[in-house]
Amino acid sequence: MRTQVGIVGAGPAGLMLSHLLHLRGVESVVVESRSREAIEATIRAGILEQSTVDMMARAGVGDRLKREGVVHHGTILRFNGRDHRIDFEGLTGGRVATLYPQHEVLKDLIKARLDAGGDIRFEAKDTVVEDVESPRPRIRFTDKDGRAQNLECDFVAGCDGSYGVSRPAIPQDKRKDYLRIYPFGWFGILCEAPPSSEELVYARHPRGFALISSRTPEVQRMYFQCDPNDKTDNWSEDRIWEELQTRVSGEDGFRLKEGRIFQKNIVPMRSFVCEPMQHGRLFIAGDAAHTVPPTGAKGMNLAMADIHVLDRALGRFYADGSTDLLDTYSETALKRVWRAQHFSWWMTSMLHRFEGASEFDEKRQLAELDLVTSSVPAATSLAQNYVGLPLE
Amino acid sequence: MRTQVGIVGAGPAGLMLSHLLHLRGVESVVVESRSREAIEATIRAGILEQSTVDMMARAGVGDRLKREGVVHHGTILRFNGRDHRIDFEGLTGGRVATLYPQHEVLKDLIKARLDAGGDIRFEAKDTVVEDVESPRPRIRFTDKDGRAQNLECDFVAGCDGSYGVSRPAIPQDKRKDYLRIYPFGWFGILCEAPPSSEELVYARHPRGFALISSRTPEVQRMYFQCDPNDKTDNWSEDRIWEELQTRVSGEDGFRLKEGRIFQKNIVPMRSFVCEPMQHGRLFIAGDAAHTVPPTGAKGMNLAMADIHVLDRALGRFYADGSTDLLDTYSETALKRVWRAQHFSWWMTSMLHRFEGASEFDEKRQLAELDLVTSSVPAATSLAQNYVGLPLE
Repeated sequence: MRTQVGIVGAGPAGLMLSHLLHLRGVESVVVESRSREAIEATIRAGILEQSTVDMMARAGVGDRLKREGVVHHGTILRFNGRDHRIDFEGLTGGRVATLYPQHEVLKDLIKARLDAGGDIRFEAKDTVVEDVESPRPRIRFTDKDGRAQNLECDFVAGCDGSYGVSRPAIPQDKRKDYLRIYPFGWFGILCEAPPSSEELVYARHPRGFALISSRTPEVQRMYFQCDPNDKTDNWSEDRIWEELQTRVSGEDGFRLKEGRIFQKNIVPMRSFVCEPMQHGRLFIAGDAAHTVPPTGAKGMNLAMADIHVLDRALGRFYADGSTDLLDTYSETALKRVWRAQHFSWWMTSMLHRFEGASEFDEKRQLAELDLVTSSVPAATSLAQNYVGLPLE
Repeated sequence: MRTQVGIVGAGPAGLMLSHLLHLRGVESVVVESRSREAIEATIRAGILEQSTVDMMARAGVGDRLKREGVVHHGTILRFNGRDHRIDFEGLTGGRVATLYPQHEVLKDLIKARLDAGGDIRFEAKDTVVEDVESPRPRIRFTDKDGRAQNLECDFVAGCDGSYGVSRPAIPQDKRKDYLRIYPFGWFGILCEAPPSSEELVYARHPRGFALISSRTPEVQRMYFQCDPNDKTDNWSEDRIWEELQTRVSGEDGFRLKEGRIFQKNIVPMRSFVCEPMQHGRLFIAGDAAHTVPPTGAKGMNLAMADIHVLDRALGRFYADGSTDLLDTYSETALKRVWRAQHFSWWMTSMLHRFEGASEFDEKRQLAELDLVTSSVPAATSLAQNYVGLPLE
């Protein structure tokens, strides 16, 4: 089996790349370990930057997003028991964030690929990426019918997430991994309740951070900072609501609307970057190359930004044989990656409680929140980074 | 001996307060442990915020500052071996920083006080502040002729610095001290050389921070981050220059102009705040109440900002007997103090090497510097904080 670009992983990065290449007339095959049903049924977060929304529209997969996505014109930073709003739209000249969960993005992309005759191999097993230093790299896998497959390609795009096989295909001595693990996690719940706030609420409380977000008018997603080694079984519904209500409590009497909790999980928090994002004819993108803590809502957007760069580079190659944009893919993508790493770290640092932080640190943290919510340039910098830098 | 306002300390805060009160027709006496000659001969740093310059002018002590102060329209952040300029004037609508060393400010203020018949008791010993909870607080001291003096006042202003007697006159259980000690110090030199740069250079290098500043066309002040427990004797002239040249080196070939080093010292770095800044009829201001690391050049400016608030509050009291502004002195001053603490901490964190910092942290630090020097709102926020918020 042959194709031009072999893609490992049917996440947002892999599917978007496949679709953009298709629009350029470049062939690809996507190899994915999970089933379509499993992918589409996994409820995921999703705040889209303006540039991600624009990219979906340009790729022709933005109709449902435009209809069903919930535009966030701003967000709430809550501290000292009061709301402080960051007005994205007013501060950035009209740019906004859009709530549209990742699984909805995936549904749209999978449908678009299949409608266009795209080739996605779901439920692939034992996938390996080989010979990436040669002009004919390969993806070998066992297909869902148990047959061994050997996919020869011009290029391999590794879009298979943090724990995929692509990054390890770059030899250890050819890459550098940067890692920071945070000493806390997020305890996440999904519950059946109406929204408690029209916009996301990032709450800083002496007991720790909490995030109030929404999935649909009927389903809400909330998080609170926790010990990463805690167990969800330690937390009854009553205890969870008490903790969440405490963390958002304040003089304004704000209360969360409670409802049945139907999912609980604990998310570890880490920052990770692999440099470079290329080795031979293997290009890695999205979570395969980097992880951000979720505080800045950058994960999926960064994956899409990588693909913006990679699609253009591959397009150039197939148009005139030039590798110049492929050669600079890693450098170009990493510039945005490190910006987003800084932003995600900064939002995390500003809003979380750090074990062992002195009282000076806490007062300084509040002074920073005061600055960010009362100084126009400081608020603008936050807003610009949140709604996302324009793609270059 | 009686006066209306007894002032401990003839630093910028104490002298400015005495002079502003004089202009209102309120009497004061300043009690100072050092001699006039010693104060005027101690070379100190001095970057004045726009509002400090304006305050000097309003107090009638701004003529020499206007003539001799060196206006800094911007500053240089140097990293990755290149200069990146922050344009204060352009970013803040015309506000600038002014280089005018603290000892020059002191000369001007001392002269103005003495010319106006002001009462400054130099070389006072054994100073104590007493009975601040009563309506008649006192400053007792031994004057330079060895006579015991008892100065009865309406109010005492404690402007005697970090190690003075004023802050301890607030009982431990009536105040809260916030302290952060940094795990590094600044090795400072004064040298006979022409300036190496027209504007201050804040350099971030893998070996640590360096600051290149100027005192006069003939005398330069430079610093580099060091172990706070190091000894100046460990550093020969040659070793100092090699270290400084390394920290500012880069692809542009920038070199410092070297010259004879005639002073070496090691400055510890700490952040400190005492809350509240008032107890009974004692009001503390400047370094008596707070210390910032020098990275943000906020020390003297914060002292002057405290005095702006305190002078107005005392003025109100002597005009109509109202204590409302005195009652809110601490809260009003502390709002600016914590902002400056955050800014100073942030500048310090962004530019220094932290022992044990991971490679992730270093890359993130560079991403922040990249943001600050390429994003208009981020640069504006830095510039606004550096030239100083307007006094309210």
